[in-house]
Amino acid sequence: MSTTEPTWYYENFEHSGSAIGFRVTGKLDEVQSEFQKIEIWDTTDWGKLMVIDGAIMLTTRDNFLYHEMMAHPVLFTHSNPKRVVIIGGGDCGTLREVLKHKEVEHAVQVDIDEQVTRMAEKYFPELCESNHDPRAELLFDDGIAYMKNVAEGTVDVIIVDSTDPVGPAEGLFNEAFYVSCIRALRNGGILVQQSESPLVHIGLMKAMRHHMTAAGFADTRTLPFPQPCYPTGWWSCTLARKGSELAGFRERGAQSKSFATRYYNVDVHRAALVQPEFMREAFGD
Amino acid sequence: MSTTEPTWYYENFEHSGSAIGFRVTGKLDEVQSEFQKIEIWDTTDWGKLMVIDGAIMLTTRDNFLYHEMMAHPVLFTHSNPKRVVIIGGGDCGTLREVLKHKEVEHAVQVDIDEQVTRMAEKYFPELCESNHDPRAELLFDDGIAYMKNVAEGTVDVIIVDSTDPVGPAEGLFNEAFYVSCIRALRNGGILVQQSESPLVHIGLMKAMRHHMTAAGFADTRTLPFPQPCYPTGWWSCTLARKGSELAGFRERGAQSKSFATRYYNVDVHRAALVQPEFMREAFGD
Repeated sequence: MSTTEPTWYYENFEHSGSAIGFRVTGKLDEVQSEFQKIEIWDTTDWGKLMVIDGAIMLTTRDNFLYHEMMAHPVLFTHSNPKRVVIIGGGDCGTLREVLKHKEVEHAVQVDIDEQVTRMAEKYFPELCESNHDPRAELLFDDGIAYMKNVAEGTVDVIIVDSTDPVGPAEGLFNEAFYVSCIRALRNGGILVQQSESPLVHIGLMKAMRHHMTAAGFADTRTLPFPQPCYPTGWWSCTLARKGSELAGFRERGAQSKSFATRYYNVDVHRAALVQPEFMREAFGD
Repeated sequence: MSTTEPTWYYENFEHSGSAIGFRVTGKLDEVQSEFQKIEIWDTTDWGKLMVIDGAIMLTTRDNFLYHEMMAHPVLFTHSNPKRVVIIGGGDCGTLREVLKHKEVEHAVQVDIDEQVTRMAEKYFPELCESNHDPRAELLFDDGIAYMKNVAEGTVDVIIVDSTDPVGPAEGLFNEAFYVSCIRALRNGGILVQQSESPLVHIGLMKAMRHHMTAAGFADTRTLPFPQPCYPTGWWSCTLARKGSELAGFRERGAQSKSFATRYYNVDVHRAALVQPEFMREAFGD
């Protein structure tokens, strides 16, 4: 199944009219799960590449940007994040970042597709190094149903680390889902969700923020960051807080964090809160 | 020469093992100048696309990011930028941003290839709208030779808006060129240069900063920003100052700027000064 002569693997993004590609040396693995087709490619410069139903999910080289930004800003914004739920995130990279925070007592990852995690364990073992942490729980279940059934007011942070809002992940971007989330959160709890590219999905972001507010979240905030393997190379996450505004974060905690990161630091966090002019206009901030 | 059925135009970056593409509807124009082949393509979502010797230079939709970041941070860092030299920049987009600053009395753009400007006038007229400003001067000449001959201590800001450091632009990335620049600058004067992608060109950045310091610049600083049409979608510019450190910028001026921007604002400027963890480590900051 593997070739030796490098060739180029492209993903064409129909919505944005742009494409991203990597030079690959061959396909290492492929599995058709109950939900989707998962492929693993080897690249010349980006390590391993995971593709789900033709959509590039992550590479060994650049996933640190996304995983750090999905975990650390929300955890340093919450005053005392003890119980964390990750919806999606089957590659386990977000879970690993979450468990770097010592105050987290329990983190459950709920991905519908066990095969994603099995492939990650095999081809991205560094992302799975905290899977056996006693605070970690891995469930393979429908995240929408899971959030509906979580006991009310028991969660501090919800991280929605999903694929694009089409197919299995579509139901993670609407008001009904956010109502489940807000119910599950304690007061002051925070939801963070990957929110696509500021340059080509500003409409989606506005809709997402609108649905979050309509569901009852008190405040929303979108943080952009670079992510080469996703459309335009510029991505974002959106935070929504229950009960109070999203003013500031635990700067002293971020400054003196006890773990290593490659992108995130206290200044990067502060910088990510800044809205470029066109976003400020779009959101009416 | 034009087609109607959309197809995909890809640029494969050999150095980084990654690729960027756009959906195009046809080639609108092509000219082989004395120096390089310039192509103009029409895209479905990104307006016009300019390609030089196979390298994507800009699109109508995303060039504002690059042009704003090449002009405004340096001009709001200099205390009183009156005389500006742009080396390269033949599409005139940087010149347009520079001339938004009222204190600029003279801005000369020195691009070796007149055909780039002729193509920009035709296909990116919005970028050329300040070409007839009485403060603007357009020269079509070798930027390296030009900088050698500038009268000593007469320039406030030099903007090196060039192609990659291969081919015609190679001589714009070495110590000899920086020596010419520092000679031309007044004390406190600032050079800014596009410095490629933080993710795949950190070695080039380090070399560039080293050459700048060796040439006599007192301080250097690299500012990252998103730029979808360049490798990884994440780009940067590097500032170097003659005679004094690069501490701070004219925040009040940036806050009350009299012109519109789409990416840049005072907070974006502050955020761009932040170094992600891996850059901090690479530069030993």
